[in-house]
Amino acid sequence: MNNSIRGKSVTDPISKIQNLLVNELRLVDQVIKSRVQNRVEVIPLIADYVFSAGGKRIRTILLLLCTKLFGYRGESHITLSAAVEFIHTATLLHDDVVDNSEVRRGRASVNQKWDNKNSILVGDYLFSQAFCLMAQDGNLAVMDILSKTSAILSEGELIQTSAQFNLQTTKEKYIEIISAKTAELFSAVTHVAAIISKRPVEELIAMKKFGKNLGLVFQIIDDTLDYSSSDLILGKNIGEDFKEGKVTLPIILVYDKCNDEEKEFWNRVICLNNQNQSDFHHAMTILNKYNIFEEVKKTAREYYLSAKDNLQLIPDSESKQLIIEILDFSLNRAF
Amino acid sequence: MNNSIRGKSVTDPISKIQNLLVNELRLVDQVIKSRVQNRVEVIPLIADYVFSAGGKRIRTILLLLCTKLFGYRGESHITLSAAVEFIHTATLLHDDVVDNSEVRRGRASVNQKWDNKNSILVGDYLFSQAFCLMAQDGNLAVMDILSKTSAILSEGELIQTSAQFNLQTTKEKYIEIISAKTAELFSAVTHVAAIISKRPVEELIAMKKFGKNLGLVFQIIDDTLDYSSSDLILGKNIGEDFKEGKVTLPIILVYDKCNDEEKEFWNRVICLNNQNQSDFHHAMTILNKYNIFEEVKKTAREYYLSAKDNLQLIPDSESKQLIIEILDFSLNRAF
Repeated sequence: MNNSIRGKSVTDPISKIQNLLVNELRLVDQVIKSRVQNRVEVIPLIADYVFSAGGKRIRTILLLLCTKLFGYRGESHITLSAAVEFIHTATLLHDDVVDNSEVRRGRASVNQKWDNKNSILVGDYLFSQAFCLMAQDGNLAVMDILSKTSAILSEGELIQTSAQFNLQTTKEKYIEIISAKTAELFSAVTHVAAIISKRPVEELIAMKKFGKNLGLVFQIIDDTLDYSSSDLILGKNIGEDFKEGKVTLPIILVYDKCNDEEKEFWNRVICLNNQNQSDFHHAMTILNKYNIFEEVKKTAREYYLSAKDNLQLIPDSESKQLIIEILDFSLNRAF
Repeated sequence: MNNSIRGKSVTDPISKIQNLLVNELRLVDQVIKSRVQNRVEVIPLIADYVFSAGGKRIRTILLLLCTKLFGYRGESHITLSAAVEFIHTATLLHDDVVDNSEVRRGRASVNQKWDNKNSILVGDYLFSQAFCLMAQDGNLAVMDILSKTSAILSEGELIQTSAQFNLQTTKEKYIEIISAKTAELFSAVTHVAAIISKRPVEELIAMKKFGKNLGLVFQIIDDTLDYSSSDLILGKNIGEDFKEGKVTLPIILVYDKCNDEEKEFWNRVICLNNQNQSDFHHAMTILNKYNIFEEVKKTAREYYLSAKDNLQLIPDSESKQLIIEILDFSLNRAF
């Protein structure tokens, strides 16, 4: 798939990697399917709906690639990939209720198609199944990391509240939010891959940091795609964060530079959340006027370079190359 | 505290047992308090609100008493009691959103005092902390039981949906619902107590069954208190289940016996959920006309006797006596 945004074509390596990992991904799918079989019919029904929606499974791909990188032999990478997908999906089901979202991956969200109750409770079920899988896998260090990370995910969603309708949100606060919401789980995944592969401590630390930096690049660009991607690519409506008054990096960076009239505009559309149809177009005009997307990319590039640096002590290999391709794509897909 | 309901005074053994376990309960409290300290201020705020609401902590008391019963020496009973309280509290926070409840333990529920978002996300946080504690404790068998039980809790809440507004709900379906919603966690608690005390397999099985039967007695009576207790004792408004069209044992038992006019009444108030102010009083009149509360007690007594039977192979001791007092109270508090 080629994304042609802002006039530049960027090759998506995910489909290629999905093909390379087809056997492992099928095994992960089997674990997921078997764990959502239940006498309560709505559980497999909703699980099937969300897991067939064509998410990229980037966390699973990362876990599988990183264990490949370390020549891991065993089955924990399959079990734990399923556990991570369960945790991630559970948070999506809950976030959609919290944010009252209508669309997820281009389709009606579960809270819309069913209701809040089913979205909350099936989320809880998947979350529990994640820990059933970890208990079955039996690695206490992994369980410690993933349970702490799960707690941080809910912290992230709670802190995010403070950035809604709030133009005082700083870049530092924004990084704190996306660390908790996204980067910590990426970090847990790459860290866990190194742990089950029994790597020495310096590699554990490097992989943990790599995942964190990759997660930050991924989320900074993901948030920026809200102002630039087509619905088709992102599977959500563009301007969604804008509409909800969520303050992400583009707005944080532009607000300082704005003149009084422009500041008044942001205050109306974000703080008061009073918007009309042409406002998103006007927001884009201001963001482009100040070259904000270049500045966003500059920030993302700092984390990108740190991530590359973290991989330095890992020997070169085909898997490492593919991991770097994911990192590259995470940065470049928007521009 | 004496409950004087239906003319009979029943002594509540919980306060006495809380006094006997005061040191252990304080340690559990300390673990809970330390785990909810967080940079996200709303987490300790809401946690303090729910944990100070004066719940009976019956699951913690059971776990502590059962480990005392087995002469357990260690610290896992404290850690795991906190974990169980976190799981239980997380489900309450989510159930209150699902049921749109306004009152919990005599005070505004978290979804009312704050909002659905905070109730969902702080619930998720507590749930994650439960698994952090289990990972720290490091007993895989315990983790396996408690993660499976957590999944069953959400199944229970989902199956319960099928009994709302539905007079076709059978007694068997009702028992299935309260098993999943309540009795399985009681069972997990008494089972876990025996596991960490390294008891032989026949005692593990007996304690697991005991918890299940006790949980069934507890929940059958708890549901019946909706038709008989005072607000003060239960900490919720009476007639709450009735108002929400939830079909519990009293209604299941009475419906079969009713004449056409009475059946029409139940159809209107439960299936159509079309109620006026005098309907609850009329429901009570019908329930009393057919001596339903005696019949409910008869059902609860069957599980009570099984529970007593499960304890037979455990040697007599002060702790065993206190556990039996809890069982007695669970049955007799309503009548």
